[in-house]
Amino acid sequence: MDIVISKMMSKPDFQSDFLANILKANANPDIITFAGGLPNAVSFPVEAMDRAADKVLKENGIMALQYSGAQGYLPLRQFIAERYRKKGIEVDASQIIITNGSQQALDMFSAVMIDPGDRVLVENPSYLAALQTFHLYDPEIVPVSLREDGIDVGELEKAIRENSPKFMYLIPNFQNPTGLTYTEEVRKAAAEVFRNSNVMVLEDDPYGELRFAGQGGHSFGWYLGEQCCMLGTFSKIVSPGMRIGWIACCEKKVFDKLLAYKATMDLHTNMFCQMVLFQYLQDNDLDEHIARTSLLYKQKVEFMLSCIDKYFPEGVSVTRPQGGMFMWVTLPDGIKGVDVQNAALKKGVAVTAGDPFYEFERDVPTIRLNFSNGSDEYIEKGIRILGEVIKEFMK
Amino acid sequence: MDIVISKMMSKPDFQSDFLANILKANANPDIITFAGGLPNAVSFPVEAMDRAADKVLKENGIMALQYSGAQGYLPLRQFIAERYRKKGIEVDASQIIITNGSQQALDMFSAVMIDPGDRVLVENPSYLAALQTFHLYDPEIVPVSLREDGIDVGELEKAIRENSPKFMYLIPNFQNPTGLTYTEEVRKAAAEVFRNSNVMVLEDDPYGELRFAGQGGHSFGWYLGEQCCMLGTFSKIVSPGMRIGWIACCEKKVFDKLLAYKATMDLHTNMFCQMVLFQYLQDNDLDEHIARTSLLYKQKVEFMLSCIDKYFPEGVSVTRPQGGMFMWVTLPDGIKGVDVQNAALKKGVAVTAGDPFYEFERDVPTIRLNFSNGSDEYIEKGIRILGEVIKEFMK
Repeated sequence: MDIVISKMMSKPDFQSDFLANILKANANPDIITFAGGLPNAVSFPVEAMDRAADKVLKENGIMALQYSGAQGYLPLRQFIAERYRKKGIEVDASQIIITNGSQQALDMFSAVMIDPGDRVLVENPSYLAALQTFHLYDPEIVPVSLREDGIDVGELEKAIRENSPKFMYLIPNFQNPTGLTYTEEVRKAAAEVFRNSNVMVLEDDPYGELRFAGQGGHSFGWYLGEQCCMLGTFSKIVSPGMRIGWIACCEKKVFDKLLAYKATMDLHTNMFCQMVLFQYLQDNDLDEHIARTSLLYKQKVEFMLSCIDKYFPEGVSVTRPQGGMFMWVTLPDGIKGVDVQNAALKKGVAVTAGDPFYEFERDVPTIRLNFSNGSDEYIEKGIRILGEVIKEFMK
Repeated sequence: MDIVISKMMSKPDFQSDFLANILKANANPDIITFAGGLPNAVSFPVEAMDRAADKVLKENGIMALQYSGAQGYLPLRQFIAERYRKKGIEVDASQIIITNGSQQALDMFSAVMIDPGDRVLVENPSYLAALQTFHLYDPEIVPVSLREDGIDVGELEKAIRENSPKFMYLIPNFQNPTGLTYTEEVRKAAAEVFRNSNVMVLEDDPYGELRFAGQGGHSFGWYLGEQCCMLGTFSKIVSPGMRIGWIACCEKKVFDKLLAYKATMDLHTNMFCQMVLFQYLQDNDLDEHIARTSLLYKQKVEFMLSCIDKYFPEGVSVTRPQGGMFMWVTLPDGIKGVDVQNAALKKGVAVTAGDPFYEFERDVPTIRLNFSNGSDEYIEKGIRILGEVIKEFMK
């Protein structure tokens, strides 16, 4: 048969090979992987989830197994809205849609907002799977420099003035891939720039609660109200396998289209997991659980940094995140992240080169390291091998 | 803010109001609803699922809560492949992708295959949410008449010759909305027509196992091999709330794109439900469960038909399905399904008019009735009221 694939799915997809490698490494127990973004399995509340599942099926089994509404389980939406309100952000349960992880919400927002040729601002670098999703809808991606203290506000202002973008996608807390966090000053200044524009903000915040040092800043939703749609997920704070994320959108026109699209995509997010997760949240203290996980990640990042000090050659710099799951390694001039990635993989260590996080730059001297997953022995062995690989390239 | 929604999501969506009404009626306990496609809740294996969830979390909790691969849980894919093989259809687990219900697979196939302006054949009438999904990708829909014995093969041949369509979407067993089933002769003749063409077949079969009378026919996958992609789901035979469906695709080029798209959409289907469902399938006899559900639906359809004989006026005809969940009511000339739908809803009974199942026809004299859901008292009361409403229009 002579099959013609759609143009949308025939486009080159620079990111997909990197993503495939990440998934392959995750699935191979013989590989030490810092490539993905896996939560540490010891943080999973397996026994509490077992009790929650039993309770849901005994008390509300039929509801958990039957079709449900496209928007998602109301008590779970109320729980999420309440957490926003505690942070001073006015969101009602009626303004939240439960999605199959926040990845699906990225697609929903893209479908609702992007026409071919529309400009979309992203941080440079940005989350690779977000770039992939945006690409499906043929926008022009306009990257804005990310600095140690957050987005470059001057460049942001210029990018908005010159491009009239449809929206900006950003991750202000423990950014993926860099691990960087916006200071409050930068948030405030950037919010001011957005407020004077017609640009929607799509704020992704999968890691924000996993803070183990420093002070949190305000969400752009706090500054901008309905001008900011907020993505969230239970993947990093409870369980990614349940695929429960959400989008909070106070802008009515956008919200209605998001909901219509969600219903057409897959009718609704799985009800069984929504109810089991909510039961878990009722019977357990989420903040306590998050605090334990954050403490674990603090130990992991400190241990990984100590290994890096020990095994990496001089001339390699790393970000020192205050939370989240990633750090960003900058190699000495002339060494390509992709080369290090490939050489390390041959020695059994998976990392992700910086390239797929950029829209335009290639052969960049950066790699992303995930520090949340794996035992200390595993981390030490992986960093030792990675240090050797980098040293080889510096010869 | 002046927000411009994408062209894709700004198109008129004729089906969405009907879908919204269906969901609203499902959610309102004061409404007797024959409008949706809800499985009867008494068929849900709640206790067995509770045991399965407990087993999964005790034995494999970390795997159930962690990220997983985009293609889905291998043992579940193997289970599905084995059921195809028992029907003489050669499908390997590696050719199956687990989706969030088969609705998501409809979108995946559409994204991979449809460029704007491409022709897509559908049965006339066809499943309303499939039409909605196709519309997102701007094809020209070409409906082909559906007769008592299946698709009109002469018209199919002509439609292919004149339109060079990209694919045909069809539901050969207990079709939604009509409840009609293709005879083996029609399947064979239609398969011959497809084989001589370059047209992919997308076979949807959510209800095929729910047969309570007559003999089953071969899947188009049996006739056509890789020229046919097959959609399936556990929604109608085990639980829709878990959102576990699949697409089986033996055509390598299409398969690879489907998988890439699925990964970009939402990374993977929720792992917790995939594993709990598989455990349930291991510890219970699915065929026995399906036989019990089919027997229940046989009783339901017979009871509903007896009520229709009792309460509907002469001049109204209905299909008499051999399985599935729907029957199709044809009203006397001059009476519009939409009018009956609206008048019945005012009296507390929800049905779905024929209109949203058609691409072009409007004000048709048909309505779809779901017979699987609800007690006998519920069915009798609903059909009595519906009969009164129809009689009013015949005056």
